[in-house]
Amino acid sequence: MKLGWIGLGIMGRPMVQHLLAAGHTVHACSRSGVPAELAAQGVVACASPADVAREAQVIFLMLPDTPDVAKVLFDDGGVAAQLGAGQTVVDMSSISPVATREFAARVAERGASFLDAPVSGGEVGAKAASLTIMCGGDEAVFAACEPLLRLMGKNVTLVGGCGAGQTAKVANQMIVALNIQAVAEALSFAQDAGVDPARVRQALLGGFASSRVLEVHGQRMLDGAFAPGFRIALHQKDLRLALESAGSVGAALPATRLAQDLFDGCSANGEAQLDHSAMFREMRRRSSKPAGGSTAN
Amino acid sequence: MKLGWIGLGIMGRPMVQHLLAAGHTVHACSRSGVPAELAAQGVVACASPADVAREAQVIFLMLPDTPDVAKVLFDDGGVAAQLGAGQTVVDMSSISPVATREFAARVAERGASFLDAPVSGGEVGAKAASLTIMCGGDEAVFAACEPLLRLMGKNVTLVGGCGAGQTAKVANQMIVALNIQAVAEALSFAQDAGVDPARVRQALLGGFASSRVLEVHGQRMLDGAFAPGFRIALHQKDLRLALESAGSVGAALPATRLAQDLFDGCSANGEAQLDHSAMFREMRRRSSKPAGGSTAN
Repeated sequence: MKLGWIGLGIMGRPMVQHLLAAGHTVHACSRSGVPAELAAQGVVACASPADVAREAQVIFLMLPDTPDVAKVLFDDGGVAAQLGAGQTVVDMSSISPVATREFAARVAERGASFLDAPVSGGEVGAKAASLTIMCGGDEAVFAACEPLLRLMGKNVTLVGGCGAGQTAKVANQMIVALNIQAVAEALSFAQDAGVDPARVRQALLGGFASSRVLEVHGQRMLDGAFAPGFRIALHQKDLRLALESAGSVGAALPATRLAQDLFDGCSANGEAQLDHSAMFREMRRRSSKPAGGSTAN
Repeated sequence: MKLGWIGLGIMGRPMVQHLLAAGHTVHACSRSGVPAELAAQGVVACASPADVAREAQVIFLMLPDTPDVAKVLFDDGGVAAQLGAGQTVVDMSSISPVATREFAARVAERGASFLDAPVSGGEVGAKAASLTIMCGGDEAVFAACEPLLRLMGKNVTLVGGCGAGQTAKVANQMIVALNIQAVAEALSFAQDAGVDPARVRQALLGGFASSRVLEVHGQRMLDGAFAPGFRIALHQKDLRLALESAGSVGAALPATRLAQDLFDGCSANGEAQLDHSAMFREMRRRSSKPAGGSTAN
């Protein structure tokens, strides 16, 4: 199939390679050009998003944030003006669910289809084609795109109508942030109480407190190993999407607001480029141990 | 071995039966007397905690809260006055880590040993002898008690010195409450955004957002199945222990404070006896959906 791809960052590059490996033709463009490696593998470099859309039946977007998607779709030289019946835009970026519904409506005005399909699993999942892909859109559109998505991901779900994929992704990022907050607060508490947090974590694994975050991020907190991983700056973006979306639908997000506040504290301390498990450092700063340390043990 | 047991509630009763099944003699007392079933199985009913302590080498406590343990140990007719060298008090109640260190010191003045050994796993774990048991105390005392504890639990850990078991239990209850908060907030957000929370949960299982709470309590939230389980009133007690302990060691617990506030909201709405996953109901009350519902999908 003739496919289009816009956005060739650390996620987009390996994802495109899975499409190529399955025998598809990929027309692509990217702000920083098409890497030589991809061109050598057969990717056709295009000058603009409009050029990609002229050639491709399905156009994938993998971009940093909501304004980037708006620009690629609707600016001069954008995708939308070239769209017609039989074409589909699949937005795999993580962006605003509210803006997504507006974008989908404008794409529909051109007679084309839209699917939101954000992913989780990071660079590792992108390379291993093991991404979780959360989709929103019409069932027929999803059914048509599903074989392509399964080349890039393992757990591919139609969550609901347009925007539902983005809503699920936001919910995912909320839970990850709040579970990090839970583990950071509990291990920090143990440390202040004079108890070895590593042994506390060990005692808790396997019980009702267990989570992927307790396993993975808990260990990072104990090791002080905060090289990313997933950067605080990106998680701040995701929580901003959560808080903005919540505002527009009237949802209360008290814990998410608190997690964002802790990430902001990290940011203010120059830690925005550290792994999100470094929220633990902000938790430590907020603990005011009495002089002389704990009296425990 | 001649063992003592004080506190025969829904946890204590099945735990005693595992000790009996292993051939130990159990001298017991309880505020509401020794149940006929246990007496028939060989439990020796005692009139007071002091009578239990006179007979037993190891005296187990399984009581509701800190003041109950203080009373059983130190009031007239209590355990402490009967204690001497060679005896050990094993407190399996979930109580204050700070008070625990004081109790242990007073028991040590009598020449006896003390181990804090709170559990998680609930009535199901108590019956199946699959409890997680988090211990604090001297290594020699732990080593001597470990074979007895392994009759009641599977994951038995010495976390650290005196009080460390209670600190680990508090950390466990913090993480469980905060993971419930995370799932409640994310599923409530999805619902407000017009997306089926059941499909969101399904899409998230197996990814970085996964946790025992997303599996178990998330399903309860979707089903509105809030029969306990573990009651909000008990979890409020555990978070109160967390906040009090944190106060005494200078630990910041912003998320725990918020979770307690949400449980308080449940309590104010007559839900203190519901399962702790009913925190979801308070989250729903705090969402103020615009008239006419969501515009999503």
